[in-house]
Amino acid sequence: MIELSNITSPEDIRQLTIDECESLADDIRTKIIQTVSVNGGHLASNLGIVEITMALHRVFHAPEDKLIFDVGHQTYTHKLLTGRFSTFDTLRTYGGISGFPRHNESEYDCFEAGHASTALSAALGFARARDALKQKHHVVAVVGDGALTGGMCYEALNDCGNSRTRMIVLLNDNEMSIAENVGALSRYLSRLRSSTGWIVTKKQVKHRLQNLPLIGKGLYNIIHSGKEMIKSLVVDDGFFSALGFRYLGPINGNDLSEVERMLTLAKEMDEPVLIHCLTKKGYGYMSAEKKPEEFHGTPPFLIESGKSANSSAKSNGAIANEELIKLADTDERIRVITAAMPLGTGTAAFAKAHPDQFDDVGIAEEHAVTLCAGMASGGLKPFFFVYSTFLQRGYDQVLHDVCIQNLPVTFMIDRAGISNEDGQSHQGLFDMAFLRHIPGLTLIAPADEQELRLAVKAAYEWNAPCAIRYPKSAVVLPDGASVDTFAIGKWETLVEGTEATILSVGSMTAAAMRVAAQLNENGLSVQVVNASTIKPLDTACLDKLFAEGKPVFTLEEHVVAGGFGSAVLEYAALSSANAQIIPIGVADCFVQHGDHQHLLEDVELDDNTLVKRVLHAMTKEDRSNG
Amino acid sequence: MIELSNITSPEDIRQLTIDECESLADDIRTKIIQTVSVNGGHLASNLGIVEITMALHRVFHAPEDKLIFDVGHQTYTHKLLTGRFSTFDTLRTYGGISGFPRHNESEYDCFEAGHASTALSAALGFARARDALKQKHHVVAVVGDGALTGGMCYEALNDCGNSRTRMIVLLNDNEMSIAENVGALSRYLSRLRSSTGWIVTKKQVKHRLQNLPLIGKGLYNIIHSGKEMIKSLVVDDGFFSALGFRYLGPINGNDLSEVERMLTLAKEMDEPVLIHCLTKKGYGYMSAEKKPEEFHGTPPFLIESGKSANSSAKSNGAIANEELIKLADTDERIRVITAAMPLGTGTAAFAKAHPDQFDDVGIAEEHAVTLCAGMASGGLKPFFFVYSTFLQRGYDQVLHDVCIQNLPVTFMIDRAGISNEDGQSHQGLFDMAFLRHIPGLTLIAPADEQELRLAVKAAYEWNAPCAIRYPKSAVVLPDGASVDTFAIGKWETLVEGTEATILSVGSMTAAAMRVAAQLNENGLSVQVVNASTIKPLDTACLDKLFAEGKPVFTLEEHVVAGGFGSAVLEYAALSSANAQIIPIGVADCFVQHGDHQHLLEDVELDDNTLVKRVLHAMTKEDRSNG
Repeated sequence: MIELSNITSPEDIRQLTIDECESLADDIRTKIIQTVSVNGGHLASNLGIVEITMALHRVFHAPEDKLIFDVGHQTYTHKLLTGRFSTFDTLRTYGGISGFPRHNESEYDCFEAGHASTALSAALGFARARDALKQKHHVVAVVGDGALTGGMCYEALNDCGNSRTRMIVLLNDNEMSIAENVGALSRYLSRLRSSTGWIVTKKQVKHRLQNLPLIGKGLYNIIHSGKEMIKSLVVDDGFFSALGFRYLGPINGNDLSEVERMLTLAKEMDEPVLIHCLTKKGYGYMSAEKKPEEFHGTPPFLIESGKSANSSAKSNGAIANEELIKLADTDERIRVITAAMPLGTGTAAFAKAHPDQFDDVGIAEEHAVTLCAGMASGGLKPFFFVYSTFLQRGYDQVLHDVCIQNLPVTFMIDRAGISNEDGQSHQGLFDMAFLRHIPGLTLIAPADEQELRLAVKAAYEWNAPCAIRYPKSAVVLPDGASVDTFAIGKWETLVEGTEATILSVGSMTAAAMRVAAQLNENGLSVQVVNASTIKPLDTACLDKLFAEGKPVFTLEEHVVAGGFGSAVLEYAALSSANAQIIPIGVADCFVQHGDHQHLLEDVELDDNTLVKRVLHAMTKEDRSNG
Repeated sequence: MIELSNITSPEDIRQLTIDECESLADDIRTKIIQTVSVNGGHLASNLGIVEITMALHRVFHAPEDKLIFDVGHQTYTHKLLTGRFSTFDTLRTYGGISGFPRHNESEYDCFEAGHASTALSAALGFARARDALKQKHHVVAVVGDGALTGGMCYEALNDCGNSRTRMIVLLNDNEMSIAENVGALSRYLSRLRSSTGWIVTKKQVKHRLQNLPLIGKGLYNIIHSGKEMIKSLVVDDGFFSALGFRYLGPINGNDLSEVERMLTLAKEMDEPVLIHCLTKKGYGYMSAEKKPEEFHGTPPFLIESGKSANSSAKSNGAIANEELIKLADTDERIRVITAAMPLGTGTAAFAKAHPDQFDDVGIAEEHAVTLCAGMASGGLKPFFFVYSTFLQRGYDQVLHDVCIQNLPVTFMIDRAGISNEDGQSHQGLFDMAFLRHIPGLTLIAPADEQELRLAVKAAYEWNAPCAIRYPKSAVVLPDGASVDTFAIGKWETLVEGTEATILSVGSMTAAAMRVAAQLNENGLSVQVVNASTIKPLDTACLDKLFAEGKPVFTLEEHVVAGGFGSAVLEYAALSSANAQIIPIGVADCFVQHGDHQHLLEDVELDDNTLVKRVLHAMTKEDRSNG
């Protein structure tokens, strides 16, 4: 009996029989389900790719051969097979192993990813490096059909197919990206899946294989020793062949023998090859098979029922969509756009209420932004819901297509700030820095649920580019406070104080209020101003504060470099104000994964550290301890 | 006789016969060649697209119908036909008309562009807006085969083909992007062009047309009244049909009648249609037909010889490539990458010297960056040469693929600063702001040719992400000065002075030295420090300056928001320095087109204004006039 706990490297599974592997696959699924049910994580995609991962490690010899997983969140089996069984329980926890590939965990993680559609470009880079350095190993990119909607994939296919560089693309086609898949290519893949035209006879397969360069009778026999017929080998599929790839498939990606046979074949081919594997997302866990979107990224859940273990706080995405649903009841110009994230961004509710005013463009943020620009040019009012980290993909389009033309597009930036368990590739800590310098863009960060609702209405009425950034969950201000008025460019004092001022942004406003209360207990009277518009700054408010001459702290869940504090410093310098400004934010480093409180402590933005930082700065200002 | 000067709107050319139009086409070409020979501009692409543009304006009714030109630099004929003949002589000059579509010039310019591959997304946005608002007009996107290497195009095709939204894509296939075209799709287009399989008989065409939905005998007769046979109508081309598009073509895009017939057909089809037009870049001007890449974007030239009117200054791209050619002589790990710009970036010389260490990926900046990340992971030392404005496309990849993994990729950022005649879509005024906040990225801006050479060597030896920004042409320091030492993170004093300091970046260092000399004549002694590393800052130098307590000016050809001055302000604030810092840079607006001197004056960075700004700030500091 093979124990998963005894697998310490891929070498250990190369010795096993197919039956032993299938038994191990069950254990892997059990381990994944158990761990994710406790820690949360990506479930459906990981359950679907167990056999593919095992086949990859049996046919190829990592780390010499390079296995590059697109998006990276489907590497749980890979981690279990590469020496991380003993630490797997710490998945996604603070100080534990990451939910994504990481160099510092394992030499088997040769390329890190968290965003989609990068693996083909990276693999081509590895392949060219191999050829330049006269090495011989194999390079395999594993990419989902969802990620294939991203334009980068196509740029890489186009480049690779032209240069004929030897590499293998394994297309893991589970008919889903995160939500149900969209796009013409998805339909095309269905056609490949279902068309009987692709099923060829055994005789044809034999003929084709024997006539392939480098493939003789021997290999044909190896490949064909299995009991099942391999379908539709080496056909001109039209699309991938136009891009210079040899298309192999489709095959059943949950059948270990079939995947192994195909990988063995591909390994011998001296050209770019694409293997089309069909898998079932959530395979082996009924709740996830039925609702794979809900089990894409999941919080902890009860295995028996598949239900969430604890009710989560109301999401800001849901709140914003409630407002837009109301506005769209009477305005057909409103349009809501998502890039493959209807559940994560809360736009599924809008889609249900106003299906004709909703677009899911797939994982395609660049297109999404310029589509919005076109819609706005044509008279609509588009709202693009996107995570902060994924809007990085659309930076040029925000600047070049939306802002140069001053078009009324609103960017609804979710997961702004620290993104917890997903870690460094998902942190929303850069958006103010990459948006603030774009001329003509208004930038808002509401402090609580009520202000978010007001900001959505303000953006709707604002006839120019606008961005609203907010964390995943609604922020609750202390002592039952709420922000009941909002105007773009106007800041409100939420806590009165006489000795210093905190200008707080978005999620940090609640923290600033709590910190002010603690400071008050320490004898320091601090004013809290809710700086809910980052651009334009409330210069009247700043002029007044600078004239008063008291220390001004800026507070943001965002890097200091180029952020809100930086904007306040620039204004003070340009207006020759003699102000003492102390910017507080995240230092110049990537933030890891873990729970919010631990990460806040790491970046010194937790309440206790903030109290100390303010007191320390005030002491420097020749103040004694209040 | 039809005079081009009498054409004031597209209505005027709809009345003309084909023969009259062909005569007019000659006049248009003459006007374009004459104007570009004086003003510089995009020549080859504009000469190729004359007939297509005329056909578009004869078959469709802009501005109600939307004509969206990808990249926008091929709109000269469009401008001449839409009321801009009388101002055409001012093309690309300060205060004159732009070389790109601009709303503020004409209602016929419905969408602005300067970067490639955006038109399909924008057109889909227009089409969805039309449908949502129950309008009926047509939407046509005109895209070159070069732009089709950009992933955004594919994202848009995928989205449009799936939703079946009615719109027309006119593929202007001149077998070139800017340089010779690359990529597998380009080969595929060649196959479509040359394959006799695509040529169908008249009978087949008739049969197909009559069996198309919505196309009856009448339309068939209209389309078929011309003398030439239409080739290969409505075939399943494999690639575009996989993306849900009806493929029409290929046709001769320099044959007005043929293009008109095909557009008339496409107009009647209620689905996404792609028309494949073959054109000749530079058509009608022998010098440009022979060397279309040189006449892509050209400085003023002599019409007779095709030679450049004045010898231009040595380019920084050429200088940097000279260094890399030398380094690559003994290091096979060096790799130079361009995205369709071998001439513009000076990498053609490297490609000639070390063809095996060079990659042109086509217009595909996202892929280029992640390809570099893969290459670096595989042991190479990639240098990606790219214009500042086009690196905006790769922002996410710089952060997510290169910097999170701390990979030794160097970004060679050309056209940093004001980009003159190309105007707002091409300004290199944001790169420090979108790069500076990325953890782990070193950012350099050399002051002159010699320092650029040293910086390239330093980047080569630096084992981490690095970016070097520089303007198009080598900067010459005053009085024969040159920078002969360089170390990352160390700044050098170039001019001694006692009353204030200018910290200058890159191209502005020469200006700072000239300004210091002028200020000296005004009795003010100003030190100039060459801040050639923007990140990390030379904090030892800053500490010393802050301790001295004299005013510190930061000077950069870049927006103030989030730029170098902003970094200095942040450091001063974080180190509690009591410093007086005056950031000088470009204000928060998009900068238009024109000659460098006029634009510098507009943004108040010309020498005279700088002298005044420094004197003004020093006066504020309670200094009397020297």
